[in-house]
Amino acid sequence: NASVPGLYEFCQQDPLYGYFVAVAGQDGQISSDELQRCLTQSGISGTYQPFNIDTCRLMINMLDRDMSGTMGFTEFKDLWQALNAWKNIFMSFDRDRSGTVEAQEMQQAIKSLGYNLSPNALNMIMKRYSVNGRIPFDDFVSCCVRLRGLTDHFQRRDTSRNGTANFHYDDFIQVTMSM
Amino acid sequence: NASVPGLYEFCQQDPLYGYFVAVAGQDGQISSDELQRCLTQSGISGTYQPFNIDTCRLMINMLDRDMSGTMGFTEFKDLWQALNAWKNIFMSFDRDRSGTVEAQEMQQAIKSLGYNLSPNALNMIMKRYSVNGRIPFDDFVSCCVRLRGLTDHFQRRDTSRNGTANFHYDDFIQVTMSM
Repeated sequence: NASVPGLYEFCQQDPLYGYFVAVAGQDGQISSDELQRCLTQSGISGTYQPFNIDTCRLMINMLDRDMSGTMGFTEFKDLWQALNAWKNIFMSFDRDRSGTVEAQEMQQAIKSLGYNLSPNALNMIMKRYSVNGRIPFDDFVSCCVRLRGLTDHFQRRDTSRNGTANFHYDDFIQVTMSM
Repeated sequence: NASVPGLYEFCQQDPLYGYFVAVAGQDGQISSDELQRCLTQSGISGTYQPFNIDTCRLMINMLDRDMSGTMGFTEFKDLWQALNAWKNIFMSFDRDRSGTVEAQEMQQAIKSLGYNLSPNALNMIMKRYSVNGRIPFDDFVSCCVRLRGLTDHFQRRDTSRNGTANFHYDDFIQVTMSM
C-alpha cells in the first residue's frame, strides 16, 4: 500500500492516534512536558511518581528526525512500541512487582537486549543508574534509550566493522551530549 | 607540608569540614540522596524545587575515584569548588535572576568556560538541555559536568593531540554511559 494515509485512515487503522491527539493538544506535537504527563498518567512505571522529565527529553531527542524538539504521530508510534518492549523486559525481571529491578537483574536485561558488554562496562552502567542498588523503570528506559542511540552512532562510524571507531572532538561531543 | 592532616587539623583549617560531616552522617560518605538534600537546602539553584537527583549522581560519579558510589571529604571539596565556579558563571548570565538562563546565554557560558565547539554542537546541547528555551541551574550543572568529563576522556585518548580519538566499542560505552 503505497498511498499516504490521511487523518481518517489513521483514525480507522490506529487506535493509538486518538490518544496521540489527546496528549499532543492543539499544536499536534508532543513536547517533553506533555510526554511526562502522559507517561505518568498511563501508570507505565508502576508508581505514582512523575515520570523522569529527563528521560522524556531523551526519548524525544532520540526520535526527533526533524530536530523540532517535539514529536509527531509517527515518532510517537515508534516510541510507544519501544516503550512496550522495554516494559515487557523490565517486568520479566521485576519478579516481586516492586517497580524496580536489582542491579544484577538489569545486567541480565541489557544482555537480553543483545548488547555484548564487558563486566566493567556493565558495572559502570549499574553504578550510574542504580539508587541503593535498585533501578526504577524510568531510569531503566533512560539507560535503554542511551545504549541504543550511542551504539547506533558508534556503528555508523565503525566503517570497517571491527569494533573501533574514530571520532573528531566536535562530533564526539555532539553524539555524546545529545543523550 | 607533606604530613597528612587529621580530623583536628581539618576542622581548624577548613570550615567546610563541619558542613560535610553534617551532610554525610554516620558513614562519613555522601550518597546521591544526601547530596540532593544538601543542595536543595543550600538554595544554590535559587528555587525551592529539589535539586535534580540525576545531576547529583553524575557529580558523585565524576569525582568518585574509589568507585564507591559515594563521596568523601576531599571529593566534596573539589565538587564545592566546581559548583561555586559554575554558579558564578550561571549568575553572570542570569541577569534577571530568574534561576534560569536562555539557550543563547548558555552558549556564551559554555564558550566562556573555554570549550571550542561548532554552532551545530552548541545547538544540539541547547536542544538537549533547554525546556521551553530556558535552562535551570541544575541542568546547567549537568551539562558542565558532562562536558568536562567527556572532554577529559576524549583528550586522554587523543594521544597525537590532533583533535581525533579512536575508541573501542566497550570503552566508548563505558565513557559515555558513565555520564
